[in-house]
Amino acid sequence: MKREQLRLYLVTDSGLSLGRPLEEIVGEAVAGGVTMVQLREKEASTRDFVELALRLKPVCKAAGVPLIINDRIDVALAVGADGVHIGQSDMPYEVARKLLGPDKIIGLSVENFEDLEVANGLNVDYVGISPVYGTPTKTDTAEPFGLEGLRKAVELSAHPTVAIGGMNASTIGAVMGVGTDGVAVVSAICSAPSPREASQELLKIVNSNLGR
Amino acid sequence: MKREQLRLYLVTDSGLSLGRPLEEIVGEAVAGGVTMVQLREKEASTRDFVELALRLKPVCKAAGVPLIINDRIDVALAVGADGVHIGQSDMPYEVARKLLGPDKIIGLSVENFEDLEVANGLNVDYVGISPVYGTPTKTDTAEPFGLEGLRKAVELSAHPTVAIGGMNASTIGAVMGVGTDGVAVVSAICSAPSPREASQELLKIVNSNLGR
Repeated sequence: MKREQLRLYLVTDSGLSLGRPLEEIVGEAVAGGVTMVQLREKEASTRDFVELALRLKPVCKAAGVPLIINDRIDVALAVGADGVHIGQSDMPYEVARKLLGPDKIIGLSVENFEDLEVANGLNVDYVGISPVYGTPTKTDTAEPFGLEGLRKAVELSAHPTVAIGGMNASTIGAVMGVGTDGVAVVSAICSAPSPREASQELLKIVNSNLGR
Repeated sequence: MKREQLRLYLVTDSGLSLGRPLEEIVGEAVAGGVTMVQLREKEASTRDFVELALRLKPVCKAAGVPLIINDRIDVALAVGADGVHIGQSDMPYEVARKLLGPDKIIGLSVENFEDLEVANGLNVDYVGISPVYGTPTKTDTAEPFGLEGLRKAVELSAHPTVAIGGMNASTIGAVMGVGTDGVAVVSAICSAPSPREASQELLKIVNSNLGR
């Protein structure tokens, strides 16, 4: 994985997509410049999850954008996804790596500095600093890092970082400014009237705040 | 898998275990003669599911009883379980077989005669005829087969069969009488005051109605 692929990282949420199929959201988002796509489905049956991933795969592939599966290593293996994103309640990293092999992308959410220290000792491809801000799209999250917490986390991290939680056009400029490699966006793209234009606008903000 | 291993097949349900840890339920059940154990956890996080499976594994292994994981092929691979049980909304059989390899047990629930016909063309190790009766432990199930439907399904099946749904001391005698290879029991063991004695009692009924 290239560090630049974290820049504008779309995390899907079917429930926030205003009834539009995810293929449409993702198709527009990659056309608008999203650099990575994570399929997150907490309620779907395994079969529906697999079928949805199979529909997104050619969309992502055509755009040269990695498709990452949230939590479910079986789904990632079934569809030949580019990797998985795991949280602290998901498969332990070592097991995930063993099942997926050395070449797949594995991202890990860290919810505090203790998690980050553990992640520094693992061969993960990136860490998600989660959440930076409180957010209505995930209700089970830990205490937010805040901007200063994120700055410290980015400094301490041995791996590329992506900021998660509360990422939208108003927040991502400052977030990129503290040196994170990218931002993970949910509703700011999934719920946008035009996911393509929203992605273009967000990417522009990200790029103009790179390496400040 | 030996056909006899289907005889008294425990499907776990943490919510029906009256607060007792599943290791205790399973330990008693295998001591009482259960021939196969399926770990079913629809609500647990991946990490909790894996940890629970790792706790059950030595208990089953010591008793020589296969440990089967419901739905989650990633969990089965992570813990080196003996196989998986998949339903019609889970991973498609061919994908499951590819991920698990030729030696693992794969059982498939069939909910009607159309599912059964499809299953006859697959290399599954057994089919679960589900549900035979209505049951409070699964609320999302299809129209029950009933005893005559079960008899017909057993006759038509190319694979060993296990009867699922409403299996308890009052029903399993007749169910075994129509020629099924075994019965899958949830609450009759998980909720019993003594899972061990309940298993012994159920196994006695199963064995006395074999090949009638």
